[in-house]
Amino acid sequence: MQRSGIITITTDFGHKGPFTAVMKGVIYSRFPAAKVIDLAHDIPPQWPPEAGFWVSRSYQYFPAGSVHLAIVDPGVGTERDILMVEYDHHIFIAPDNGLLGRMLDNAADARVFKLDPECLRSLNIENPSMTFHGRDIFAPIAAEIASGRINPVAIGTAITEWTPAWIDEPEIHAGKISGVVITLDSFGNLITNIDVALLNAIENPVVHVAGHELQLLGTYGHAQPGDYLALINSFGVIEIARAEGSAAEGLGADRGAPVVVTT
Amino acid sequence: MQRSGIITITTDFGHKGPFTAVMKGVIYSRFPAAKVIDLAHDIPPQWPPEAGFWVSRSYQYFPAGSVHLAIVDPGVGTERDILMVEYDHHIFIAPDNGLLGRMLDNAADARVFKLDPECLRSLNIENPSMTFHGRDIFAPIAAEIASGRINPVAIGTAITEWTPAWIDEPEIHAGKISGVVITLDSFGNLITNIDVALLNAIENPVVHVAGHELQLLGTYGHAQPGDYLALINSFGVIEIARAEGSAAEGLGADRGAPVVVTT
Amino acid sequence: MQRSGIITITTDFGHKGPFTAVMKGVIYSRFPAAKVIDLAHDIPPQWPPEAGFWVSRSYQYFPAGSVHLAIVDPGVGTERDILMVEYDHHIFIAPDNGLLGRMLDNAADARVFKLDPECLRSLNIENPSMTFHGRDIFAPIAAEIASGRINPVAIGTAITEWTPAWIDEPEIHAGKISGVVITLDSFGNLITNIDVALLNAIENPVVHVAGHELQLLGTYGHAQPGDYLALINSFGVIEIARAEGSAAEGLGADRGAPVVVTT
Repeated sequence: MQRSGIITITTDFGHKGPFTAVMKGVIYSRFPAAKVIDLAHDIPPQWPPEAGFWVSRSYQYFPAGSVHLAIVDPGVGTERDILMVEYDHHIFIAPDNGLLGRMLDNAADARVFKLDPECLRSLNIENPSMTFHGRDIFAPIAAEIASGRINPVAIGTAITEWTPAWIDEPEIHAGKISGVVITLDSFGNLITNIDVALLNAIENPVVHVAGHELQLLGTYGHAQPGDYLALINSFGVIEIARAEGSAAEGLGADRGAPVVVTT
Repeated sequence: MQRSGIITITTDFGHKGPFTAVMKGVIYSRFPAAKVIDLAHDIPPQWPPEAGFWVSRSYQYFPAGSVHLAIVDPGVGTERDILMVEYDHHIFIAPDNGLLGRMLDNAADARVFKLDPECLRSLNIENPSMTFHGRDIFAPIAAEIASGRINPVAIGTAITEWTPAWIDEPEIHAGKISGVVITLDSFGNLITNIDVALLNAIENPVVHVAGHELQLLGTYGHAQPGDYLALINSFGVIEIARAEGSAAEGLGADRGAPVVVTT
Repeated sequence: MQRSGIITITTDFGHKGPFTAVMKGVIYSRFPAAKVIDLAHDIPPQWPPEAGFWVSRSYQYFPAGSVHLAIVDPGVGTERDILMVEYDHHIFIAPDNGLLGRMLDNAADARVFKLDPECLRSLNIENPSMTFHGRDIFAPIAAEIASGRINPVAIGTAITEWTPAWIDEPEIHAGKISGVVITLDSFGNLITNIDVALLNAIENPVVHVAGHELQLLGTYGHAQPGDYLALINSFGVIEIARAEGSAAEGLGADRGAPVVVTT
């Protein structure tokens, strides 16, 4: 796979301290021509599903041959594996803790490898800390792969099983779809894990959330100020919004809130 | 106009989620040599005046030929226009909702174009989402313009009217200037929309804010710890500060608070 | 010293407004090939010790020949000096207010210069504002030095004294080490200023913090969920954590909290 030189980073580090910066320092030390882009750092601490959601819904907007690094890693320093995935002309690197589970379950032709720890020395990765593999293992590997100097197959073993996703994929049962709010944006819009593809089977869908029943509209400006609305957002999932307001505040809803679609 | 390759981005997206990142992905996909710089993402939701203030006071510090993209866009997906402006050796792109109104009113020689939507297909911009034009329309246009491949005139119509600014420009009436706090920084300094040029007409100016009367000082360290002070800040406007403290907290003042200058 | 072209920026500007962005604009205007990396911007306002801690513990992860700019500058516009330091194949630039004091005290072979203000004109730095030297003085100097066009010795005077660090270095007295929490991360882990090197002299060290006595463990996953633990973190200092929780919240401890190590 031709590389773009781009590495995106998704973490639960927030925007405090130099944690992401030193990862970039390590990357540029090994691969000076890299372009590192912060994807999202506000993943709730130690909550892999949201990182997986955003990575799987965002990677398409980057050039083919980009490397996507996602570090939400409650098991850092313990025996958990590290996954490297080639899929849809992109490469994904993350701990094997369910973060990539949803994407991999839907990706029939993905090539999945687990890192062989004994390969680390061949990459001059020695004495990694037990608490910051993002800097000491993930960043150097991302740099080596993004530079094109190595491929996942050279440092990993192909596998066909991985830690499953933590959140069930919404499905249609008896004309009803049950999903959850998976993340929120800065406007207080509630973003669900219900994919637009599921809606095809439901005529005139009605979205139920926090005691409200909402019709699907096209965009925020199609509702009156203060009104709640549901729409298919720009990442292909159902979103609950409040025109000129915050749906999260107004509805008292947060991550995990159930969202149901019926006819 | 020679291009610098730099694109700045100003939004009200906050620092949550991958929204700015996917815009960068789109830009680098079209223009790999771009340099994208986050200008500010903490604009209050759907409040264009503050974005316009910072863009118009900041662009001068970037190389000539830079592109400045500002997305505060409550009307996304509705019939509002998109503006492209050539002014002072820089290019500005924003929704036509008043965001650039103040700058354009003061920019006699600006060339202003509104985007022709039928030109989008010629740029391979197809089926943009209705809710994220930042990613699907603004980012690709910024990339094409910043790369030098196209000019605003090629995809827009020259116009001489636009949506006016939301906040009145401070003026002198009867020896008095009336302005407002337009934004705050992380120190709690209150930054007003009163330009230093207005002060020339006022002898020994006194700044009135939240019941206090303040003399103009040169810098924070010229006041005693805990004291309030007014100064001409580094962006050429009056700022209210508290030495070794937060003026915003101490005065209970926020965006929109009236600030008056008298002799 | 060969330059890497990288400039890191550490400030107390937070993530509001265009303050860091315009510094980048100034840098790219002078040195278009620069790579600017945000190290940390969440330093508490006007608190140099934390900036110094992170710079001195992070620079090693960047390529040799990088420039590290740290702006926590309560004395901006007053008579305080500006330091330029060559140390360990890196260059550091900061106000002389104690920010670099701890690092310099431990850096026997550092070459320390104070900027000669009369050299500014030779670099075309004219009429700097009194309140934003980060943009008007530090950024242009960092660009010139990072580009390799000038060396600190060309615009500064070698000195051997500087403003001392604000926080005492922990030492061993009677088999006891006394330190403090110097910073927190987004997980609520409490990061101390107690270097691992001090522990060699203490057998079976016990860490005392907020009424708890903690053994040193290897990584977060070695404790039971909810339990507090102490560990040597990836930056070589003692850190207090809570497995799957926030030590800061659980212990009610913040910056400055005393941490003591005994046998």
